[in-house]
Amino acid sequence: MAEKSRIEADSIGSLEVLTGAYYGVQAKRASRNFHITGLKMSPLFLSNLALIKKAAASVNGEIGLISQEQAKAIKTACDEVISGKFTDDFIVDPIQGGAGTSANMNMNEVIANRANEILGGKLGKYDCVHPNDQVNMAQSTNDTIPTAGKMTTILLIEKLTKSLEKLEMALAEKGEDFKDVIKMGRTQLQDAVPMTLGDSFRGYASMVKRQIARLELAKKEMATINLGGTAIGTGINASQYYEDHIAGELSKLFGRELVQADDLFDATENLDSFAEVSGALKACAISLSKMANDLRLLSSGPRCGFSEINLPAKQNGSSIMPGKINPVIPEVVSQAAFLVCGHDTTIAMAAEAGQLELNAFEPVVFYQLFESFTALTGAVDTLVDNCITGITANKGRCKQLKESSVGIATVLCPYLGYQLSAKIAKTALREKRSVRDLVLEHKLMAPEKLDLLLG
Amino acid sequence: MAEKSRIEADSIGSLEVLTGAYYGVQAKRASRNFHITGLKMSPLFLSNLALIKKAAASVNGEIGLISQEQAKAIKTACDEVISGKFTDDFIVDPIQGGAGTSANMNMNEVIANRANEILGGKLGKYDCVHPNDQVNMAQSTNDTIPTAGKMTTILLIEKLTKSLEKLEMALAEKGEDFKDVIKMGRTQLQDAVPMTLGDSFRGYASMVKRQIARLELAKKEMATINLGGTAIGTGINASQYYEDHIAGELSKLFGRELVQADDLFDATENLDSFAEVSGALKACAISLSKMANDLRLLSSGPRCGFSEINLPAKQNGSSIMPGKINPVIPEVVSQAAFLVCGHDTTIAMAAEAGQLELNAFEPVVFYQLFESFTALTGAVDTLVDNCITGITANKGRCKQLKESSVGIATVLCPYLGYQLSAKIAKTALREKRSVRDLVLEHKLMAPEKLDLLLG
Amino acid sequence: MAEKSRIEADSIGSLEVLTGAYYGVQAKRASRNFHITGLKMSPLFLSNLALIKKAAASVNGEIGLISQEQAKAIKTACDEVISGKFTDDFIVDPIQGGAGTSANMNMNEVIANRANEILGGKLGKYDCVHPNDQVNMAQSTNDTIPTAGKMTTILLIEKLTKSLEKLEMALAEKGEDFKDVIKMGRTQLQDAVPMTLGDSFRGYASMVKRQIARLELAKKEMATINLGGTAIGTGINASQYYEDHIAGELSKLFGRELVQADDLFDATENLDSFAEVSGALKACAISLSKMANDLRLLSSGPRCGFSEINLPAKQNGSSIMPGKINPVIPEVVSQAAFLVCGHDTTIAMAAEAGQLELNAFEPVVFYQLFESFTALTGAVDTLVDNCITGITANKGRCKQLKESSVGIATVLCPYLGYQLSAKIAKTALREKRSVRDLVLEHKLMAPEKLDLLLG
Amino acid sequence: MAEKSRIEADSIGSLEVLTGAYYGVQAKRASRNFHITGLKMSPLFLSNLALIKKAAASVNGEIGLISQEQAKAIKTACDEVISGKFTDDFIVDPIQGGAGTSANMNMNEVIANRANEILGGKLGKYDCVHPNDQVNMAQSTNDTIPTAGKMTTILLIEKLTKSLEKLEMALAEKGEDFKDVIKMGRTQLQDAVPMTLGDSFRGYASMVKRQIARLELAKKEMATINLGGTAIGTGINASQYYEDHIAGELSKLFGRELVQADDLFDATENLDSFAEVSGALKACAISLSKMANDLRLLSSGPRCGFSEINLPAKQNGSSIMPGKINPVIPEVVSQAAFLVCGHDTTIAMAAEAGQLELNAFEPVVFYQLFESFTALTGAVDTLVDNCITGITANKGRCKQLKESSVGIATVLCPYLGYQLSAKIAKTALREKRSVRDLVLEHKLMAPEKLDLLLG
Repeated sequence: MAEKSRIEADSIGSLEVLTGAYYGVQAKRASRNFHITGLKMSPLFLSNLALIKKAAASVNGEIGLISQEQAKAIKTACDEVISGKFTDDFIVDPIQGGAGTSANMNMNEVIANRANEILGGKLGKYDCVHPNDQVNMAQSTNDTIPTAGKMTTILLIEKLTKSLEKLEMALAEKGEDFKDVIKMGRTQLQDAVPMTLGDSFRGYASMVKRQIARLELAKKEMATINLGGTAIGTGINASQYYEDHIAGELSKLFGRELVQADDLFDATENLDSFAEVSGALKACAISLSKMANDLRLLSSGPRCGFSEINLPAKQNGSSIMPGKINPVIPEVVSQAAFLVCGHDTTIAMAAEAGQLELNAFEPVVFYQLFESFTALTGAVDTLVDNCITGITANKGRCKQLKESSVGIATVLCPYLGYQLSAKIAKTALREKRSVRDLVLEHKLMAPEKLDLLLG
Repeated sequence: MAEKSRIEADSIGSLEVLTGAYYGVQAKRASRNFHITGLKMSPLFLSNLALIKKAAASVNGEIGLISQEQAKAIKTACDEVISGKFTDDFIVDPIQGGAGTSANMNMNEVIANRANEILGGKLGKYDCVHPNDQVNMAQSTNDTIPTAGKMTTILLIEKLTKSLEKLEMALAEKGEDFKDVIKMGRTQLQDAVPMTLGDSFRGYASMVKRQIARLELAKKEMATINLGGTAIGTGINASQYYEDHIAGELSKLFGRELVQADDLFDATENLDSFAEVSGALKACAISLSKMANDLRLLSSGPRCGFSEINLPAKQNGSSIMPGKINPVIPEVVSQAAFLVCGHDTTIAMAAEAGQLELNAFEPVVFYQLFESFTALTGAVDTLVDNCITGITANKGRCKQLKESSVGIATVLCPYLGYQLSAKIAKTALREKRSVRDLVLEHKLMAPEKLDLLLG
Repeated sequence: MAEKSRIEADSIGSLEVLTGAYYGVQAKRASRNFHITGLKMSPLFLSNLALIKKAAASVNGEIGLISQEQAKAIKTACDEVISGKFTDDFIVDPIQGGAGTSANMNMNEVIANRANEILGGKLGKYDCVHPNDQVNMAQSTNDTIPTAGKMTTILLIEKLTKSLEKLEMALAEKGEDFKDVIKMGRTQLQDAVPMTLGDSFRGYASMVKRQIARLELAKKEMATINLGGTAIGTGINASQYYEDHIAGELSKLFGRELVQADDLFDATENLDSFAEVSGALKACAISLSKMANDLRLLSSGPRCGFSEINLPAKQNGSSIMPGKINPVIPEVVSQAAFLVCGHDTTIAMAAEAGQLELNAFEPVVFYQLFESFTALTGAVDTLVDNCITGITANKGRCKQLKESSVGIATVLCPYLGYQLSAKIAKTALREKRSVRDLVLEHKLMAPEKLDLLLG
Repeated sequence: MAEKSRIEADSIGSLEVLTGAYYGVQAKRASRNFHITGLKMSPLFLSNLALIKKAAASVNGEIGLISQEQAKAIKTACDEVISGKFTDDFIVDPIQGGAGTSANMNMNEVIANRANEILGGKLGKYDCVHPNDQVNMAQSTNDTIPTAGKMTTILLIEKLTKSLEKLEMALAEKGEDFKDVIKMGRTQLQDAVPMTLGDSFRGYASMVKRQIARLELAKKEMATINLGGTAIGTGINASQYYEDHIAGELSKLFGRELVQADDLFDATENLDSFAEVSGALKACAISLSKMANDLRLLSSGPRCGFSEINLPAKQNGSSIMPGKINPVIPEVVSQAAFLVCGHDTTIAMAAEAGQLELNAFEPVVFYQLFESFTALTGAVDTLVDNCITGITANKGRCKQLKESSVGIATVLCPYLGYQLSAKIAKTALREKRSVRDLVLEHKLMAPEKLDLLLG
């Protein structure tokens, strides 16, 4: 036995734990069983789990199921966890077998040990406060973990939404800036009909606005929690008082309303709400990626591309090609989007794989869903700060391309018919002449009317 | 030239078309360019596209941009298309290059030819009604096709919703039937704590109810259309009167309110709303598949499995094993769910791939989205009719399993603590004794209290 | 009872079957249980399944387990099925619960009924030849269906490979045609360094070549079959003679070597080989889609894009924009690729979902895998015939773009260093001057040496 | 300006860099542009990138393009990077815009600064060794980064393969241990026909063996590199000597043969080989997940499930249910598998999104591919160590279930026919009698023969 170790026991047997550790035997076992990502659990998630423990201690204390001292010590310990004091004591891999039992027990142990310490006890003894009996009282992994996951998702949606709002504003501003920059629209990458560059950016702003609204809807699903269902939804081992008060108490601490699901069996065994959020996020991600690709297309060049806009130069683009500036910010947006799409597949598979009263695959759902949010939010932030706000238009280039185009033949259709207009367009292309010239040469329309039409 | 052919020309050149065909040269070209699925386009989609053509003819006729005769002939032709009269004349593969131009032109040609015929003209001549100039007036592929896609999706959501409502009801009924069947709940496939079989089925009903609500929300996104945007959202070649009236006219014909998007550029170039619908459908599909898997687990046996419920025997299960009955209906539900999940990936990729003013990949989006709906609806229908309603419970088996279980040790925790309860449970398992016996033997609790607890 | 019906019975009960039908009660039940896709099963798959039945009849006949008359009648019936004679008698939806039992029984019944008829019996009587006892002798759904699936996949790989070989050749030819067309290469859509258009097309040819090689490897996995394993791999109800001869007999009929898996349990319960084939196909599909996107980029324009190449005009591009020609063929290639990617997700989920001795989700695997192949093959075929072979280069445009570019500053690096070269490039862009001019003006290099470098 | 900073400049402008930092201005810019995952780049990847830099310095030194001192200093710096000395100086997020330019420049800067230091220069000065001119000589991001990615993947495949070999062995051992444990096989979770538990585990071993073989094939694709292609495949700025020697030199340092691709354009712009590797890994992952699910099924219970095997207890299963042991190790295997499947979607999307001469989305491909490998390897390791090797069989339970089953009726088919056998099976189930009894009662077979059959 290492000098710096203490011995803890559970029903599996006994195990060495680092002397000063606030985690205990169960977290230790789990940390040895799972080396999957090599990363730590999300601090935001842990903070929300601690908030649940705090709410439970309050409610359980109110009816004397735990003593006032116990309740107070547990709540203090929770606050310390939330403040980030025990970061190193959360030792379990975010991907872990067992629906988050290890995460829950890691939290129960840290809080119990700290509460014991506050009450004068020793680490690893659990005399005054036991991880399962007091900290976890009236709870189960199966209701605390999904609830903490939903709370975390709510916060992540809010964070992304704020970033998207900035993005919408930045795009709308560019829409205003560029409202007089006439350019050719392109469909299927072929010259279509004229529009303004402002139309493009206002269009992007509208797209972002829709994503915000959709995420807002998805967020609502996250407010329905299964806390109080305990192991499988029957509420076994939770008092009626707890059932009646836990959601309210947690809402108060969380600062947002959370409501207990009508059907706790359903709410415990199904993860489709997380899949739905991921789906809404995916819809957002692919829309942003499409816009990012547009920005790359419109700024392609500088000499051999569309070159209608310039993205701000944020870093050298090449280790070998001097002076090359690349659209690295839109590129990272697309990469974050691809990430979100892949994670959505993982989340769907994990949600589908639930069996009977529980879905044991929550850990990977959370791991991927949280990363989807943080990655996309990071991508949106850099998109706003390091790209959109610095975009400038090549007004002259836009005009020149538009004037050289035969796409304007479309406006002739109502007057000359589709077939004749098509003939004019094709002749213009073949003979490298302008649509205007051809219409006038063949006296197909009076010059004044034509001027009016072609603008 | 075949005897039974006529010659039609477009700006690409001329081509033979079958003499009696209502489609024309453009559909013919497309049918030769695309042999991808070998299937026909969705009749429901074509019907909705014809409805758009009819609405446009009405509006264009009202302000005299086409004559009353033309309008009337076009509208009659549309009605005939909707009635299914020209099924064989829609010859383009549902997966086609070009954002649905070929589908749109196939429709324009069939309607034009039929309208011409009504007005005394000949097929392939387009003297009285031209596919592009009159039938497609004020429209573009780029606004008609996505609009028809949204209308179709609305109808498919309604159809699925109806089936899901039946499913919810059938499940709720079983929930009621089985409300007194006590059984062991299982988490992670391990014996957990008691519940009723009714809880399971009520839980499934609740799950289905949530899917219905979510689909209802997703349906709302489908009511925002880009009709009137024409080619790229500028509304080029559409009259102000048309802009003001087309959505209203179409809503009237369709029997459901459709509104024009505020931003027609955004609405033309982005397909994220279809991705969102597919995401909501995926969340539904995986939840149904999870339930289907539960049904397979609960009915596993008949002798070597859980055998808590019986699924109705709907067909022989094996070509080699006599008397074997398999859970084929739940299996087909899972298969439909996997289909929906894969289609969701396709839809996301296609939606992401839009470029600038258009997404040219709508055809594959529709092909897969429509199949997702029809397959899942078919699966739900057979699930209701051929499985859920015939499920029976093995009440005795449920009871026997529950009584043999040590999972009931959980209720001891608040009284004996987690550690002692765990010890009792483990001893019970090891020594093949009951929890009750052990508690009494060690005088851990008064018999009366224990009776109360263990029920 | 309908006049035109006969009654057939199985252990579930009795059922009306159409009088002249060759299918029987089991297929009928299945056709009522499954309305999922509304489509028919793959004819190629059915043909391969019939080939298996024929091989089994041969081998069973050789050792007298069925009579010579029975064997002969069954084999004749199989040949007729293969010739397409009973197309309408295969009535089961391709997506069906139960690992393909319904497909297998549909086949057994058609063959049995036809064999009975040949031997003078009546449809539905099975006096001389019984679907389960003789046609299915020594077989199970669980070994015949996956084997037929593998045979079908082999043929589909061969078909795609042939199309890819044509594509490789067409691309290589263009590589040769364009070998002297100097143009700017682009990385991240920004001007990079010069190359030839031939390099691009030869690069595409090399990419296709790699796909062919990879599919060839994947094909090998398909040649290992589990025929002879019967229900779960034990070979129950198959004679030793059958075990020894069935793979050989089938190989002979199929014209390609098929070998029995070493471990029939593994081979019966796992579908990873289909997932692997789908993965290889996906790698192919995304590579083709990337190339298709390049073709769209390079042909973008005609006036407002890159316009370095022209794709052949295969159909009018727009219902509203006259004269517009769109890259519809490359677009359909990308759509087929997205389809393949989605199907790969479905196939992975279905393959993952196998339980114990069988994977019951084969039908959806086959449905999607077969469509992946046919769609991609169709896309490749139209790509070769209607696009690649007709591509022309805009040599002048390529040259002009290349000469206007500052990307050639890269060649200065080894002589002037990265930093000075970058400065020159940036100055050239800012002052709209050429790299050559700036180098000479600042006397950074002798004119002759510069000429050599810049070519 | 912070006291502890130095100023560095590039063509974008000047920027503060921490005084003691070995990275430079370009890494600094990138670290500010990309906050996506918040993580560090893979050490293994960085090590391989440094190996490339070392090989390049060797080759460039051999022909005097850099001095002996420069070469030596660079190689020493590379060795130090590989030894892990500069871990904190790699500051760029693994997901970054621009095909890995920032990773490459981060590496070039660290090596240049350290080499300068070795040669007596100061950090940030680059007098003796410049990041672009000497460290990156004859290289580009576009050939070094994919090459480092392939080398890393090779090592990760080898690591996983080793773990899979252990798994195969552990499974085979159990196959041997359990070879006499007769049990019922189950198809579609329904009782099928008898087999041994050894058959199951040998089947799993066979499955694993196939995965190893497939990964071995996939590994071969990784040995073809594009080093020497520099920016786009033309080899611009690389000497002929370098072209001839770089792959050989790198192979020597790497200890494995790497060969230059025949077509460097193709090899630079396409990432399908990474998609293929991910596909093979996905096939492996889903097969492992299927097996993991089987282990959960077979060990379900302890009282209310199949309970044919026992998994070793590795941690307490529940925070609320005392004594509950859950199959956490198989659960984490499935989670890792779902992760791999999702990552495969991301990788495919990123690989598809390449444009023209480059795919700018490599960073996300590597980020996900590397995590797929490490997560699955971690899952396999814990599966071997903490699950498979400790599995025990409930021999009595297996036997009892088998004997109670009517699945054995299958063996009667060849003697009594399918229909009669089905009737017996159904009667046995309905009347809760044994198949044996019924056969004897109805004198369908001589007792001795029956004994022989039923074993």
